[in-house]
Amino acid sequence: MHRFSARIELIQESSLNVARTHLDDLTKPRGSMGRLEDVAARLFAIGQGQMPLVVEPAIMLTVAGDHGVAAQKISPAQQAVTRQMVRNFLNGGAAVNALCRSAGMDLRVVDAGCAGGPFEKHPALLDRRLGDGTDDISLGPAMSREICLKGLETGVALAENYAVQGYACIGTGEMGIANSTTAAALYCALLDIAPEAVAGPGAGADAAMLRRKIAVVRQALQVNTGLLREDDPIGALAALGGFEIVVLCGIILGAATRRLPVLIDGFICSAAYAAALKICPAAAGYSFLSHTSAEPGHGPVLQKLDPDQIPLLSLGMHLGEGTGVAAAYPLVRCAAAMFNDMATFSSAGVKM
Amino acid sequence: MHRFSARIELIQESSLNVARTHLDDLTKPRGSMGRLEDVAARLFAIGQGQMPLVVEPAIMLTVAGDHGVAAQKISPAQQAVTRQMVRNFLNGGAAVNALCRSAGMDLRVVDAGCAGGPFEKHPALLDRRLGDGTDDISLGPAMSREICLKGLETGVALAENYAVQGYACIGTGEMGIANSTTAAALYCALLDIAPEAVAGPGAGADAAMLRRKIAVVRQALQVNTGLLREDDPIGALAALGGFEIVVLCGIILGAATRRLPVLIDGFICSAAYAAALKICPAAAGYSFLSHTSAEPGHGPVLQKLDPDQIPLLSLGMHLGEGTGVAAAYPLVRCAAAMFNDMATFSSAGVKM
Repeated sequence: MHRFSARIELIQESSLNVARTHLDDLTKPRGSMGRLEDVAARLFAIGQGQMPLVVEPAIMLTVAGDHGVAAQKISPAQQAVTRQMVRNFLNGGAAVNALCRSAGMDLRVVDAGCAGGPFEKHPALLDRRLGDGTDDISLGPAMSREICLKGLETGVALAENYAVQGYACIGTGEMGIANSTTAAALYCALLDIAPEAVAGPGAGADAAMLRRKIAVVRQALQVNTGLLREDDPIGALAALGGFEIVVLCGIILGAATRRLPVLIDGFICSAAYAAALKICPAAAGYSFLSHTSAEPGHGPVLQKLDPDQIPLLSLGMHLGEGTGVAAAYPLVRCAAAMFNDMATFSSAGVKM
Repeated sequence: MHRFSARIELIQESSLNVARTHLDDLTKPRGSMGRLEDVAARLFAIGQGQMPLVVEPAIMLTVAGDHGVAAQKISPAQQAVTRQMVRNFLNGGAAVNALCRSAGMDLRVVDAGCAGGPFEKHPALLDRRLGDGTDDISLGPAMSREICLKGLETGVALAENYAVQGYACIGTGEMGIANSTTAAALYCALLDIAPEAVAGPGAGADAAMLRRKIAVVRQALQVNTGLLREDDPIGALAALGGFEIVVLCGIILGAATRRLPVLIDGFICSAAYAAALKICPAAAGYSFLSHTSAEPGHGPVLQKLDPDQIPLLSLGMHLGEGTGVAAAYPLVRCAAAMFNDMATFSSAGVKM
């Protein structure tokens, strides 16, 4: 784990305090911009005090992968939909495309291992395939430890690459039929939660399918029990993860390494985030939770992970793709604009 | 009241249903964009089915006024701050300036009656003065019924004017030292709420000041009791309102008259909204609640007003000025982009 965490620095409390002093000098009652003030203070500390705060340009990385466990019929959608939706992303017709355009985020689609072989080349597509879909976690590990490490390195390198290109903010998104089952299993292993507390309807499972999903998660935890050790989150990722989740975990760690703010999407991306925090708790300082998903387990999981971090939005969304991030990104821009552009009491001649 | 409500049409349920059918044909699980789908459906119905949905350009109208009740020392800020902050708005240094620039909203400042006489001319300032501050509501009515009607007409005409100029969305904002006391009194009269349930710290009242504030609200309700009749919201506005609140009420009614979406800011603007709904309930169909303020009474008041309308944001903000609207406006743009730009299942070849 050391190679993924060694270069991630803790956010400095002293830097947060400098930011808070600045915020209190702006022409508004103290604290009256609520959580936007917390966002701004953290952006200031992430940037080590550089002014102005910069969060543009921003890039959304929507990472796709397939899951062997889809064979257990725990999703109402067929596995082929992963591939169809990747094409939809590349053609610009999905929700994440519309929202990224609206919010001013660039978008790249990362194929981390969709079933059915590589896609045709496309300027918005990055081929980072770790395999042709994972193995079925209800029968054994999703992937080998070596592939998992390769996936983490892939994610770190992606963040590194976009940092070098000048991006100031990274968004996480995902696509993968059956990945709410994978994420649920990961939460159970990483956070010691019961399967029935964290398995939910996902893309629309009915009651019978949900019961099967819970049983499948329980079985996945049983058959992989020898690989699940409290001090080994990479073991849990390899046993229960998906290719997209592993790469996203690497992206979060890579963003923190490069001191870039990274926005976490919903139920699936939060599983990558949970794994990232187990690998390096300091990564939390660079991460912003974009929204609470309608998936019932999401709120409780985030609460358990860090009760002080409240997602920016709670709009009953449960689509994934990065749509929660794209919806929340303008708030991050607002927070930076407030911090950068407001007058101080003395400069404006306001005496409150 | 008839002249303010006669030309406001009910949003058509049939139009909402057409929008929902379109939303269900877009490449996403049904309902998975949560409340953004509700926003889009309502925008569609507001526009009477015109495609694409248009919410740009948008204009923020930050309306300022002073309150005689400020003499009762129910705010930690001096009355002069209203005037100082209007200058800050005009100089571009306030929170609402930073957020409007970030969110892509134009901003105009409306002087509805700040104490100290008219401001110097400024291209962003509209002189719509109804007086030099209201009278003290704890001693008698804030203004005459005639002035209140003039204020409502002023607001309607402002909305009309920006509709004619081609604006597709109107934001509400306010500034006025002591106006959380005014708003609290209005909520009591309009919604039959107890003063202690709705008077809060505002810009930062301590416990002793808050007790005084509650007593002042109670006194205002008593001395004006003859003017407060359940079937006469305009009487309540005249007795307990502020100039900015009256003009904002007119803006909301004017936006609905012109079939424009109007975004409601926090605790103060919601009082204007409550009065608008009492004058014409159909105005609700054109109004979007931007955020729940940290002011403790705001959430319960909105719940009482319409339990089905949940504000888009809840970020612990309590600044006013229109900052909640500017923070929420990008979500309205996102909702429109989703509705306008996403592929359908058939066009994208996705089979869920």
